[in-house]
Amino acid sequence: MTPADGPFRVGLLGHGTVGGAFAALLAERAEMVGAIVGRPPELVGPLTRSRGAYEEILERSDVVVELIGGTDPAREYILRALRAGRHVVTANKQLLSQHGAELYAAARENGVSLRFEAAVAGVVPVVRVLQETLAVTHVERIHGIVNGTTNYILTEMARTGASYQEALSQAQRLGYAEAEPSEDVNGKDAAAKMAILANLAFGAPVRLDQVPYEGIEHLTPDDMEYAGELGLELKLLGTAERVQGGISVRVHPVFLYPGHPLASVLGPFNAVTIESPTITEVTLSGPGAGGPQTASAVLGDVVSAMVGPPLVLDEPAIQLPVVTEVVSAFYLRLEVADRPGVLAQVAQVLGLQGISVKSVVQKGLGDQARLVMVVHPVAESRFFAAMELIGGLDFMRSAPRAIRVIEEEFL
Amino acid sequence: MTPADGPFRVGLLGHGTVGGAFAALLAERAEMVGAIVGRPPELVGPLTRSRGAYEEILERSDVVVELIGGTDPAREYILRALRAGRHVVTANKQLLSQHGAELYAAARENGVSLRFEAAVAGVVPVVRVLQETLAVTHVERIHGIVNGTTNYILTEMARTGASYQEALSQAQRLGYAEAEPSEDVNGKDAAAKMAILANLAFGAPVRLDQVPYEGIEHLTPDDMEYAGELGLELKLLGTAERVQGGISVRVHPVFLYPGHPLASVLGPFNAVTIESPTITEVTLSGPGAGGPQTASAVLGDVVSAMVGPPLVLDEPAIQLPVVTEVVSAFYLRLEVADRPGVLAQVAQVLGLQGISVKSVVQKGLGDQARLVMVVHPVAESRFFAAMELIGGLDFMRSAPRAIRVIEEEFL
Repeated sequence: MTPADGPFRVGLLGHGTVGGAFAALLAERAEMVGAIVGRPPELVGPLTRSRGAYEEILERSDVVVELIGGTDPAREYILRALRAGRHVVTANKQLLSQHGAELYAAARENGVSLRFEAAVAGVVPVVRVLQETLAVTHVERIHGIVNGTTNYILTEMARTGASYQEALSQAQRLGYAEAEPSEDVNGKDAAAKMAILANLAFGAPVRLDQVPYEGIEHLTPDDMEYAGELGLELKLLGTAERVQGGISVRVHPVFLYPGHPLASVLGPFNAVTIESPTITEVTLSGPGAGGPQTASAVLGDVVSAMVGPPLVLDEPAIQLPVVTEVVSAFYLRLEVADRPGVLAQVAQVLGLQGISVKSVVQKGLGDQARLVMVVHPVAESRFFAAMELIGGLDFMRSAPRAIRVIEEEFL
Repeated sequence: MTPADGPFRVGLLGHGTVGGAFAALLAERAEMVGAIVGRPPELVGPLTRSRGAYEEILERSDVVVELIGGTDPAREYILRALRAGRHVVTANKQLLSQHGAELYAAARENGVSLRFEAAVAGVVPVVRVLQETLAVTHVERIHGIVNGTTNYILTEMARTGASYQEALSQAQRLGYAEAEPSEDVNGKDAAAKMAILANLAFGAPVRLDQVPYEGIEHLTPDDMEYAGELGLELKLLGTAERVQGGISVRVHPVFLYPGHPLASVLGPFNAVTIESPTITEVTLSGPGAGGPQTASAVLGDVVSAMVGPPLVLDEPAIQLPVVTEVVSAFYLRLEVADRPGVLAQVAQVLGLQGISVKSVVQKGLGDQARLVMVVHPVAESRFFAAMELIGGLDFMRSAPRAIRVIEEEFL
């Protein structure tokens, strides 16, 4: 570490898109950073695959910025930095969602800050708002669009009628999707971020492997068309909420009613809605990714780590179990043979499972016949059991298709 | 002040709606607050018109919460508390927008925090985000819907076709407007908040008396109807932005294009969009007022004041002049006599002032004849000079009607 009257030193691990943008931004904003911290910043490193030695960078740093990504060696590097009494800033959502408890404990035990605004929703300051503004607020639920790639793809599908594959290719051409997009489109990236947010909001440890997720790869232009007809928006939504007996964290496509604060979030943007009885709801939105945006969030954390008190997550006071059984309303589409008694049989199966139908429309004739239904909120296990049964009925022309619906509560 | 191992004491000045809600929330959340601060909270006061002595409350407090409102005696109370080395939390926008520089200097000189999240946009954490997350970001522009009363009234006018007066009465019945609503509906309340935000964003002192504002009292169902036809939303919008040679801060009704992040903000909500080249834009929204919401913002500040480093506004490094000449696009409605040559004369006046017409539609016949135009961005002084001239033309049936327009930039 440096003497208190010299510059403060920022050890940089990683020099990819975000690492490079961070180094550039630190240089560009050096004067402003120095004015706030009271000492000018000085970059140490970066550590790359071919250059720099971790031990040396650690030795010379006051705060370590980890932008390598992945769990190994990032986990080891961060733990050693915290144990050596260094503040750490990271954007590593996969690491935090898998080994968060260990890292938060190391920060706590060593009285240093572990900050990670850039790990969730880019420059959207949801981590700070949960940790500081709402630190003493009882948060009931968080809804998030926390993956810009999928939100861009869904926006394009809705806007142009493109297929999933076409919209993905477009996203890749424009740099909104990686060449290897699977963790974005299958929902895993969003699940990692929701695990981190749940941890912050409820003070309960949630790991990525406890978060069920579903992606957008199977969505079709038909789904978009129905969304349009129903006046709904189709989004990949993360949910973290208190439920009877614990908490539930999950990610899946949902139809959102148009007045919902997340329904109007378009393109590669991210947004998070935090609900609490005291505050009703607060929504934060902005660009979800991009090197300069993420670097800006990292730099904000570096300054806060230097001037703030150590910011640590408390040891979980209560163990809130992660509950997998939750209640949802569903949109349901059945491709059926066009003959008498079909609706009666479907209604009977639903009724036996205690599923209450809110609306039903028959569409098309003959080979095009379809039942489109919306059912009232029901335990998901019951609903999927009913889907299983309906899927086995002899008049079904293909597997039933179900998408969750979040309906307006105040109608 | 209290010994470091005893409770920390919160001196409460004022016990109206917000003061009462704050006292209740502090009691309810005492355990969580104590866990974060490391010492349990204890309320001292409150000071009301009929009860308590300021000197005694000050003497016994670690942090003073000012919820009296108004400038006198609030200004004196806050200055004395800061000079006595007490942190201060306030929700007093009128005071900050008129005497902010003096108060910020007193906090700086005494090394204590002056926090005021609740003064702007209720629980929407725009103050913290500007001061901390974006502390080293070059902010270019802020747009805000920062008055919930007017946003509720405009939402109702658009939704139901009600007149301004009808919607105001409705707002009063529901508690969204005060019995004496003039500072809300005339834009002064929003102007005070925008002055505070400009100060934070640009590090330049801006006083309320430097902020031109216009209210919503003169808006009519006709304006709403045209907004609907044009696919635009009519909002009372605050703007604080860097312009050639300085900054501009102002509040007035505008037509917003539907994709703008503030266009979908409905009812008594507040929202702020912060634009910067580095981050593109971040939008924060939530309930704008209400006792419990405001109390929640105050409590977040109390905790931060106790655990954080002294948070102070830097002494203004550069004097950015407040510029009054800005450029805007306008919507323009002219009630005219239905006779040949009218459009030509209007076009000539506009042309002489260098105003370029984007679109023009003639509506109605005879006594109902109207010209509805949208003009490209132009210096406002030129536009109003043209309005003056047009208003004097003999075929005008009433004064010309103009409303600013913010159009989509990416078309």
